[in-house]
Amino acid sequence: MRITALAGGVGGARFVRGLRHHLDSSPALADSEVTVVANTGDDISLFGLRVSPDVDTLLYTLGGGVEESQGWGRADESHVVQSELAAYGALPQWFALGDRDLGTHVVRSQWLAQGVPPSEVTARLAARWGLPERRIRLLPMTDTPVETHVVVDDEDGGERAVHFQEWWVRHQASLPAKRFVVAGLDRAAAAPGVLDAIRQADVVLLPPSNPVVSIGIVLGVPGVRDALRGTAAPVVGVSPLISGRPVRGHADACLRTVGVPVTAAGVAGLYEDFLDAWLVDPADAGTTLPRARVEAFDGPLLMTDVEATARIAAHALRLATAVSA
Amino acid sequence: MRITALAGGVGGARFVRGLRHHLDSSPALADSEVTVVANTGDDISLFGLRVSPDVDTLLYTLGGGVEESQGWGRADESHVVQSELAAYGALPQWFALGDRDLGTHVVRSQWLAQGVPPSEVTARLAARWGLPERRIRLLPMTDTPVETHVVVDDEDGGERAVHFQEWWVRHQASLPAKRFVVAGLDRAAAAPGVLDAIRQADVVLLPPSNPVVSIGIVLGVPGVRDALRGTAAPVVGVSPLISGRPVRGHADACLRTVGVPVTAAGVAGLYEDFLDAWLVDPADAGTTLPRARVEAFDGPLLMTDVEATARIAAHALRLATAVSA
Repeated sequence: MRITALAGGVGGARFVRGLRHHLDSSPALADSEVTVVANTGDDISLFGLRVSPDVDTLLYTLGGGVEESQGWGRADESHVVQSELAAYGALPQWFALGDRDLGTHVVRSQWLAQGVPPSEVTARLAARWGLPERRIRLLPMTDTPVETHVVVDDEDGGERAVHFQEWWVRHQASLPAKRFVVAGLDRAAAAPGVLDAIRQADVVLLPPSNPVVSIGIVLGVPGVRDALRGTAAPVVGVSPLISGRPVRGHADACLRTVGVPVTAAGVAGLYEDFLDAWLVDPADAGTTLPRARVEAFDGPLLMTDVEATARIAAHALRLATAVSA
Repeated sequence: MRITALAGGVGGARFVRGLRHHLDSSPALADSEVTVVANTGDDISLFGLRVSPDVDTLLYTLGGGVEESQGWGRADESHVVQSELAAYGALPQWFALGDRDLGTHVVRSQWLAQGVPPSEVTARLAARWGLPERRIRLLPMTDTPVETHVVVDDEDGGERAVHFQEWWVRHQASLPAKRFVVAGLDRAAAAPGVLDAIRQADVVLLPPSNPVVSIGIVLGVPGVRDALRGTAAPVVGVSPLISGRPVRGHADACLRTVGVPVTAAGVAGLYEDFLDAWLVDPADAGTTLPRARVEAFDGPLLMTDVEATARIAAHALRLATAVSA
């Protein structure tokens, strides 16, 4: 089976890890291929190094190197280099740059500077983390540099744009956002393999990633939304909200910014033109959608651990079979 | 007093540290200014980062952050980032890149990429290490990127050039060198302040740095040699050899490569056109030079510790006074 998932960082990475665990535990599914299309709107240049937070979280989570307690960054991490950068007065200091993590940014930046496209850089990084052996293909959504910015009020009554990472990490999404602007996205081209991965998939999954600033950004890459509308594969999503609250992160602030109800149905509405089925928490069992089938998971829709996540992924795959029958 | 010293890495840094110690211990000399003109021919790009080994050794030694046991690199160092680079298969691995040290390379590379010239980058780095407060002005010899390469025989009977660092660090100067080639040096311009620091000095000192690949490279910057010939200041050198052997490093291999006798007199010959006095070890007391005054130090010419080095520097300053009287 060819499964394609669009993903942001922590939520997407944990979902795909659970999905892969389910596939590996099912003899009939073990040779399935999972293609992950990662959001790169979070990418940021810090200290001259190119950081790709969602790709890194996917690499570390799927490769067994993530700091489990926080869901991102490297386990057994130190921060020696960052303390040196601070001693030199280099800014910013609000983005945690661990030493192990920095190794990734240094090699990525070196390869990019040599002209290697981000998709090939990602493939090289993924090789170190053993993703090909696990039948996971990790693709950045685009090879074009794009960056999500958040438009907020400035002190003079005007507006200013701050990088998404600054809004998310430094301000914890607490600055009222007026809108999101993704610099470069309108001129971006989907990375090699992305559109085919959607068109030729047997199943397309939308993990419980942020619907606005993660999956929403991937959907903005020219051609992606058309590919989702046109694919013969069932498209099944997993709600990132339970009873109108995000399990993790600031999806509520993001949804309010784009004027979408902070509900499982509200999120599904963002995918209305291509969504075939929607998996929700039992608390949201009453959700109805005009086009897509809604099912409630038989337990809390929480990715508590790999096993629990595998059961959620298994349910999503059953839903895919059901709606394509 | 305005003192200008040309310097390579470990030897130059230790000498200037001892010199500064002597000045600080002498009320009449405490407000002397020391300008250090550093060799940048050792500079190398590793993993997309610009490393300037001699400048870094000067910063760390004069700023109190050096790993004393080896004379270069940072004390209390770790190598987490390098282990990550190795895990990604990034090359080369023969150059030790500590995490603390890497912080310097990251900020330098960021500033250079922003268009800040190396001399201004060096000034910013020196500020963190407190050099201005210690009345030490650290100047790279040039803002032009230059790189010393070593021409060696290749396996096919031809020649190939390897970067100086590879020859020095990886091969420990054991590959027979045919000649040194400094890429970019003929078109380099002395960095701002360098020529004036020589012309307007009260004393010019040549520490016991490598005469070929450290001081010799600085002398190759257009204008430097003329400034030394023309300055009214006495030029006093400290021999890097004792009884025909380098105290440290591979000056013997370098001297043989350029066809110069591996003796205190041989080294002084490289400076013949501008050298006024030459301080040697008691073992070399019989050295005579056609133009310059030779004196033997009253003890081993070894920079064993800061106090011993301060005494050597003090002797060099007395020699300067003697020859200019």
